[in-house]
Amino acid sequence: MRETLEALAAGELSVAAAEARLSGYATTSSGRFDADRERRRGIPEAILAEGKTPTEVVDLTETAIETTDRALVTRADVATREAVESAFRSTGATVHIDDRAETVAVTGETFDQPSLAAEVCVVTGGTSDYPVAGEAVAVVETVGADCRLIEDVGVANIDRLFDQLDAIREADVVVAVAGREAALPTVIAGQVDSPVIGVPVSTGYGHGGDGEAALAGLLQSCTALSVVNVDAGFTAGAQAALIAQGVDAADS
Amino acid sequence: MRETLEALAAGELSVAAAEARLSGYATTSSGRFDADRERRRGIPEAILAEGKTPTEVVDLTETAIETTDRALVTRADVATREAVESAFRSTGATVHIDDRAETVAVTGETFDQPSLAAEVCVVTGGTSDYPVAGEAVAVVETVGADCRLIEDVGVANIDRLFDQLDAIREADVVVAVAGREAALPTVIAGQVDSPVIGVPVSTGYGHGGDGEAALAGLLQSCTALSVVNVDAGFTAGAQAALIAQGVDAADS
Amino acid sequence: MRETLEALAAGELSVAAAEARLSGYATTSSGRFDADRERRRGIPEAILAEGKTPTEVVDLTETAIETTDRALVTRADVATREAVESAFRSTGATVHIDDRAETVAVTGETFDQPSLAAEVCVVTGGTSDYPVAGEAVAVVETVGADCRLIEDVGVANIDRLFDQLDAIREADVVVAVAGREAALPTVIAGQVDSPVIGVPVSTGYGHGGDGEAALAGLLQSCTALSVVNVDAGFTAGAQAALIAQGVDAADS
Amino acid sequence: MRETLEALAAGELSVAAAEARLSGYATTSSGRFDADRERRRGIPEAILAEGKTPTEVVDLTETAIETTDRALVTRADVATREAVESAFRSTGATVHIDDRAETVAVTGETFDQPSLAAEVCVVTGGTSDYPVAGEAVAVVETVGADCRLIEDVGVANIDRLFDQLDAIREADVVVAVAGREAALPTVIAGQVDSPVIGVPVSTGYGHGGDGEAALAGLLQSCTALSVVNVDAGFTAGAQAALIAQGVDAADS
Amino acid sequence: MRETLEALAAGELSVAAAEARLSGYATTSSGRFDADRERRRGIPEAILAEGKTPTEVVDLTETAIETTDRALVTRADVATREAVESAFRSTGATVHIDDRAETVAVTGETFDQPSLAAEVCVVTGGTSDYPVAGEAVAVVETVGADCRLIEDVGVANIDRLFDQLDAIREADVVVAVAGREAALPTVIAGQVDSPVIGVPVSTGYGHGGDGEAALAGLLQSCTALSVVNVDAGFTAGAQAALIAQGVDAADS
Amino acid sequence: MRETLEALAAGELSVAAAEARLSGYATTSSGRFDADRERRRGIPEAILAEGKTPTEVVDLTETAIETTDRALVTRADVATREAVESAFRSTGATVHIDDRAETVAVTGETFDQPSLAAEVCVVTGGTSDYPVAGEAVAVVETVGADCRLIEDVGVANIDRLFDQLDAIREADVVVAVAGREAALPTVIAGQVDSPVIGVPVSTGYGHGGDGEAALAGLLQSCTALSVVNVDAGFTAGAQAALIAQGVDAADS
Amino acid sequence: MRETLEALAAGELSVAAAEARLSGYATTSSGRFDADRERRRGIPEAILAEGKTPTEVVDLTETAIETTDRALVTRADVATREAVESAFRSTGATVHIDDRAETVAVTGETFDQPSLAAEVCVVTGGTSDYPVAGEAVAVVETVGADCRLIEDVGVANIDRLFDQLDAIREADVVVAVAGREAALPTVIAGQVDSPVIGVPVSTGYGHGGDGEAALAGLLQSCTALSVVNVDAGFTAGAQAALIAQGVDAADS
Amino acid sequence: MRETLEALAAGELSVAAAEARLSGYATTSSGRFDADRERRRGIPEAILAEGKTPTEVVDLTETAIETTDRALVTRADVATREAVESAFRSTGATVHIDDRAETVAVTGETFDQPSLAAEVCVVTGGTSDYPVAGEAVAVVETVGADCRLIEDVGVANIDRLFDQLDAIREADVVVAVAGREAALPTVIAGQVDSPVIGVPVSTGYGHGGDGEAALAGLLQSCTALSVVNVDAGFTAGAQAALIAQGVDAADS
Repeated sequence: MRETLEALAAGELSVAAAEARLSGYATTSSGRFDADRERRRGIPEAILAEGKTPTEVVDLTETAIETTDRALVTRADVATREAVESAFRSTGATVHIDDRAETVAVTGETFDQPSLAAEVCVVTGGTSDYPVAGEAVAVVETVGADCRLIEDVGVANIDRLFDQLDAIREADVVVAVAGREAALPTVIAGQVDSPVIGVPVSTGYGHGGDGEAALAGLLQSCTALSVVNVDAGFTAGAQAALIAQGVDAADS
Repeated sequence: MRETLEALAAGELSVAAAEARLSGYATTSSGRFDADRERRRGIPEAILAEGKTPTEVVDLTETAIETTDRALVTRADVATREAVESAFRSTGATVHIDDRAETVAVTGETFDQPSLAAEVCVVTGGTSDYPVAGEAVAVVETVGADCRLIEDVGVANIDRLFDQLDAIREADVVVAVAGREAALPTVIAGQVDSPVIGVPVSTGYGHGGDGEAALAGLLQSCTALSVVNVDAGFTAGAQAALIAQGVDAADS
Repeated sequence: MRETLEALAAGELSVAAAEARLSGYATTSSGRFDADRERRRGIPEAILAEGKTPTEVVDLTETAIETTDRALVTRADVATREAVESAFRSTGATVHIDDRAETVAVTGETFDQPSLAAEVCVVTGGTSDYPVAGEAVAVVETVGADCRLIEDVGVANIDRLFDQLDAIREADVVVAVAGREAALPTVIAGQVDSPVIGVPVSTGYGHGGDGEAALAGLLQSCTALSVVNVDAGFTAGAQAALIAQGVDAADS
Repeated sequence: MRETLEALAAGELSVAAAEARLSGYATTSSGRFDADRERRRGIPEAILAEGKTPTEVVDLTETAIETTDRALVTRADVATREAVESAFRSTGATVHIDDRAETVAVTGETFDQPSLAAEVCVVTGGTSDYPVAGEAVAVVETVGADCRLIEDVGVANIDRLFDQLDAIREADVVVAVAGREAALPTVIAGQVDSPVIGVPVSTGYGHGGDGEAALAGLLQSCTALSVVNVDAGFTAGAQAALIAQGVDAADS
Repeated sequence: MRETLEALAAGELSVAAAEARLSGYATTSSGRFDADRERRRGIPEAILAEGKTPTEVVDLTETAIETTDRALVTRADVATREAVESAFRSTGATVHIDDRAETVAVTGETFDQPSLAAEVCVVTGGTSDYPVAGEAVAVVETVGADCRLIEDVGVANIDRLFDQLDAIREADVVVAVAGREAALPTVIAGQVDSPVIGVPVSTGYGHGGDGEAALAGLLQSCTALSVVNVDAGFTAGAQAALIAQGVDAADS
Repeated sequence: MRETLEALAAGELSVAAAEARLSGYATTSSGRFDADRERRRGIPEAILAEGKTPTEVVDLTETAIETTDRALVTRADVATREAVESAFRSTGATVHIDDRAETVAVTGETFDQPSLAAEVCVVTGGTSDYPVAGEAVAVVETVGADCRLIEDVGVANIDRLFDQLDAIREADVVVAVAGREAALPTVIAGQVDSPVIGVPVSTGYGHGGDGEAALAGLLQSCTALSVVNVDAGFTAGAQAALIAQGVDAADS
Repeated sequence: MRETLEALAAGELSVAAAEARLSGYATTSSGRFDADRERRRGIPEAILAEGKTPTEVVDLTETAIETTDRALVTRADVATREAVESAFRSTGATVHIDDRAETVAVTGETFDQPSLAAEVCVVTGGTSDYPVAGEAVAVVETVGADCRLIEDVGVANIDRLFDQLDAIREADVVVAVAGREAALPTVIAGQVDSPVIGVPVSTGYGHGGDGEAALAGLLQSCTALSVVNVDAGFTAGAQAALIAQGVDAADS
Repeated sequence: MRETLEALAAGELSVAAAEARLSGYATTSSGRFDADRERRRGIPEAILAEGKTPTEVVDLTETAIETTDRALVTRADVATREAVESAFRSTGATVHIDDRAETVAVTGETFDQPSLAAEVCVVTGGTSDYPVAGEAVAVVETVGADCRLIEDVGVANIDRLFDQLDAIREADVVVAVAGREAALPTVIAGQVDSPVIGVPVSTGYGHGGDGEAALAGLLQSCTALSVVNVDAGFTAGAQAALIAQGVDAADS
């Protein structure tokens, strides 16, 4: 603790960074940022932009950079994406924006990107599943796993899937993203020997729409897989990342 | 009308049969039997045993034989199946019982079994789907269509299905019966060019159990198919039978 | 395969068309178009505009024309309908738009329209059911069956229905479209001997609104019929088209 | 009040009857019996046997007889029906039991049965609707209205209904009892000019089973009718009785 | 029939009016108007504006005036209300608009307003229940019953209700309109001896919001009442009107 | 800690009691008993018998007596109640059983019963609400508050409630227990100035049955009250007990 | 009463104030204001702005000030907040607005603010819970209890909560506000010995979103707590205020 | 293939084993056993006893032993467990039964048990979660991972959990099993850096009972975890096993 306080007194450390080191989180006007999460949980805290103003998101992003040298913002609308980009434009930080997935990844100048000896494959049933899949990809890349994205292989034409099956089998963990009846993750999980995480997507209309049929179907799947909530690309990506970290740790 | 009344007066026609000819239904102490249904609707009225006493079922079965020379009883428990069998044992009628599907089919001595130039294929995902599938088979056989039953080809091991695909493709209409997430009818409907009727089965536990996940998934299917209610093997069989009749009529 | 490659090399075949012939689908920047579906499934793949940009829809429509010489776009808003029309205006293609049903049908100059010896009757309960019914009509016309539309014969005044019953009985298959409590398909199915497909419509407010009462009622119907999801006019039309194809095939 | 107390002191009035006159209800070991209900509400309090022991039901029935000279017990199983019958066997009271509807009506020796100049018609879709319909009949007869029961006229064969329509039209109020999709009350309400009360019945299986489809359909009915809860024959009968009382009052 | 045709030929009757007399309904470009409904059902068909364009509503309103000399439009937004008013401004018709309830009532110059010897009382729990209550009032006034509206007597302060109880007791039928937990109709029905129709209103938020708690509570009410769907002021008013007609008929 | 270990070594303390003192809970073969709960949470841990064998319940009850000198068992069926009674029969402990509420309270010989200067009033709508109300009473008595039980004052006859209102107003906190539509807690909360806790009861059938209508209605109540889950008499009693403790603490 | 009438005649009392004194409520064009509620219920009636026009809210606020010298407006959008502020700007009243919580509190010039010897602690899981928490704070401050707000201590980083636990333990009653899975109130209630009121918040997406998972989880909580509806900050605050009043009353 | 056929001809291979080698599954009278699943999917097919007769289970178990030298039976009631034990008693096979978890594991005499360098920790909230947890343990042990079971550490007393946190952190993957509100997996996932699989258990009563609150809460968890269906211990165990296999593979 003394070391931290000395660094703070010497101006080598910001107040937020010092607080984060001492109590595990940094208190900001927009909430308490969990700077300790990556150490404790493996995955850094992401900033969910939904329900926050652009100013609040920028504030939290700055605290994240200050305390952990990187930030991942999810569900960021155009205004928020622009606000974050603008805030970091003239700093040394790198800002990577995925407009379709509505994510923003920021890394500080001296950030040391991790790299894992493990591969995650993210598969989608159709084009409209990308926003959810892209969120998963963003988290997986955050932890440094290899990430392969295979799109639009839904079972209406099962040849599209079988043409990609060898590629899918190479991954250490599969994130299978699908809407409507979500038969895709079930069919994949019957064919590969790695863990499959099913992500229901809120497409579909009428009874079972908004992803409820997809979710129920995945929970009832006759092939063993685990599931995350409807549209929860971030959660699926985080779980895949944790599995990839385990594979990497065993490998080294 | 005069003819009917004369036959009644002459004792050549029972009261029930005369009433059925004149008003389309026969009034019994256990309800009005819709003797006219096969002419009007293509499919004879079946006697749903569930919620009726064995005596009532026997009563209705006798009225059915009296007015239409045949009867189909569904959802008949052991006591009811025995009661019907016993009632017709020493008559000239033929009684066919399917214990797993809980159906009883009775035909009078002079019954003229129809025969259609059309084939229906009933497919199941697993062994526990048989009771529902068997109900469909019973109706299809009632109208005289060819009926092929292919069991236990669920998608957990998709090779089981692909080994049977050529056989399924030969049918004029497919009834696909499946529980849990019911991916099977969707996968089949992506591979065959005949109409597919999906039947959700009330297997599965937890969220979406009791066939609700299966039903929602079939309604959301990305391959076009129509659906009947959970466990409604009779309804699916009747719809398939009507389609088979259309094919047969066009054929002749 | 050699033939295809030679045609491609000779410039007689586009890359998309060649890919479609060889692998069954064409890969575009907006997804994989299932060019093989009509051969495999009887019904060509329709382009669901909902959730896609006008540009993506035009892109997929062009691929559909390129590989199968026709396209059917459903749930297309005004902007999308105009974009498709504009894209094909100066080509030899024919564009047919139904504004109430929000469908666009495009056929190439040399397209050979099929014609089936079978009739489909689409019936609605009220004026507000048209958008769903129109989608069904568009699919039925795609496969070349005769299609008769009978509107606004809901059971509140049952004479309206009975005045049309003879016409409905002439069809080989009936698509019955209704909202609120959806009693219409049940009443029709008690009176005709062809298969009836019930389509619940998302009208109605309060408990059971958005088509849920209609769907539940159709699934519970005391007269045998099969069902599609709420507002799924396309699915009902496709199922009717497959039945019409079966009747036509038997006929020839 | 003095009169009541004098009668009590003179032994001409029981304690329960005196309490009922003074405070409107009689306190028993099995609960407070609302002896005042018929005066205040038009319909006497019925004793719901479900969830009570036979002893408690007998106790409440005796209090009802003591304070109002009559009692109506609903949802009484065999043991309860026998207990009530046995309790009143050697008294001057008249006990009327309906085994199918599980009701018991008891009237004291000097009970003055009311008689209304109004008719209620109770209609059912099928045989299994009787238990609910019978409960409605019991309440209607309690208030002395004419009550006609027409059974088994569901819309699968609409001729059965149309043959009875003139009889139904004669009633001042119609109670229409139906399960599954419950189209019957809707069709009736389109044809008669008296108020129709729809009663959903807990038949049907799968999605919308247990009367939920019937209830939702009645609430969405395109013909104006009011509704009671699933299986609530008593409530429907009470509402019809109140309407009949209004007609009778206006008449006299 | 000859009379109608002669009047048509002589120009004394429009085509729509003639069609209405002969077949019971008039076919317009916006649907079939059920001109016969008042004779058959007691209550004239109302024109539900929701889901129709102002032009369609005007079209149907004109047909209603032409065939029945009056029209009631419900759920009419501002544009529709103005369109109807404008269409009839320079005719002899009388147009009555209720902006809060979004209803428009039109009567032709020679319309003979009925008058019933019966009273309906419409009661609300709070100010926000008026739009639904007003719809009920409009229908009741259409049939000519006396209609008293008592607002804002919810049970949070039960004195407000008890101050009005004598007035409510005078009515032949009570329509009780309430949102949130809808305890008001239950409390009223425990205190009056006329039939009570409960109308749940789509107020309230969170679990049971949108009127679902109110509806469920009314269906479970421990005091006997009948119910209509959430916000179904029209249906409740129509049912009350039919009861009032019965009282009036008995009276005369 | 040393003190505890010395007492254990000296045989003055059982192992379980020593473990409870040191770590806050006692580990048994039937689970970890939270001996520290009363100190930490105010309310001692109750033993939920549902889902446990009689042997397990006796085992946990003995540990509770050993470590805290008392035990409260809830949802105990006949066999469990007898097993507990029998286990403590020849000890100095006092066993109090409430058969209707299915609770068993055991206190050791030297138990020092607390006594609070605060009153809790438990009110029920009907006789069938007692089992839930009795559970609440048992907890309230456990902490030593005065507890008054007022039964069967549901709003169908509101005089029953108003006759008891003064008594209810005297309490520091009210637990209002009701099934079906559960209007009672709402009406009470409009009349008293103490906190009201509403407890929905799983009575009622059809839509909203099993306590769901009651729960939704209480959550939507127009008078401010807090709620516990359906049939959660224990939880309501515990919350009332904590409030009573607060009142008592302030008082002293 | 005479006193009130004399004051009214003398112009010392407004009509509304006089009516409020005599009948307990004041009748306005925007509804009946329950001026008596604070005396009867402990908590003054709040004006729910949602569903009312700014004019109606101002009207009711003026009546509240006129009859009770204060007003609390909840769920007030910007226009309503400005309308109220503007209406009272040049009067002697004090207007306090909380923009995040959308509340407006107005007190008259001579208002005598109560002060209770009791503390309420309002705790939130995250930043987006504030609007709901703020509503609770506003009510608690209305009755004059001490109110401490502790924000953003959700269990994802449980150290944030444990750092605040001593502060939370000091309160007489805890309002715990949380969305998503709402584990926070459960964890708090396991650690403190004061009553905890859980408030589910309508955050979260997918299955169980809109606060339904949070509500269900709180109702199932393994630690005893009571619950209010989703987002019902006002109700939770009112319940906490009533408990604080009880503590204060005992204290004095 | 030839090799297999020669072995069959030579009597060295049973027909079932030969079929399994050639087509991947063995066809029995009780269904097609997926003998190929372990090779293809990593986890051998388990035999779900629920819904099968003891005879069918024994039949499938024998086929499993014949083709894969081992079998795992889940959800086996007492009769089934005894039937399997009895069938293998006098063979060289080893039968391991877990009565609480209702599983039976059988291994052939020459079975070569795998062993993985990876650890799975299965944690439960309470005693009644064991049956589900035990199913997970059985699958994990099937693949040879180390498996540690930590029971009864629910958050009502959070010290119980914190005392075990170091042990939990040692595992490569955590299966967290909990009923009611299921806060436990969320709290664990905030504290460990390995993947957590949450398993909701069907405990709890009232709203959200039967595991629905637990499931919804886990899907909404603010700490990233993946989920399986209610009571799906087998699925959770299989997913954990696949992750353990990945860790082991990387390790070697």
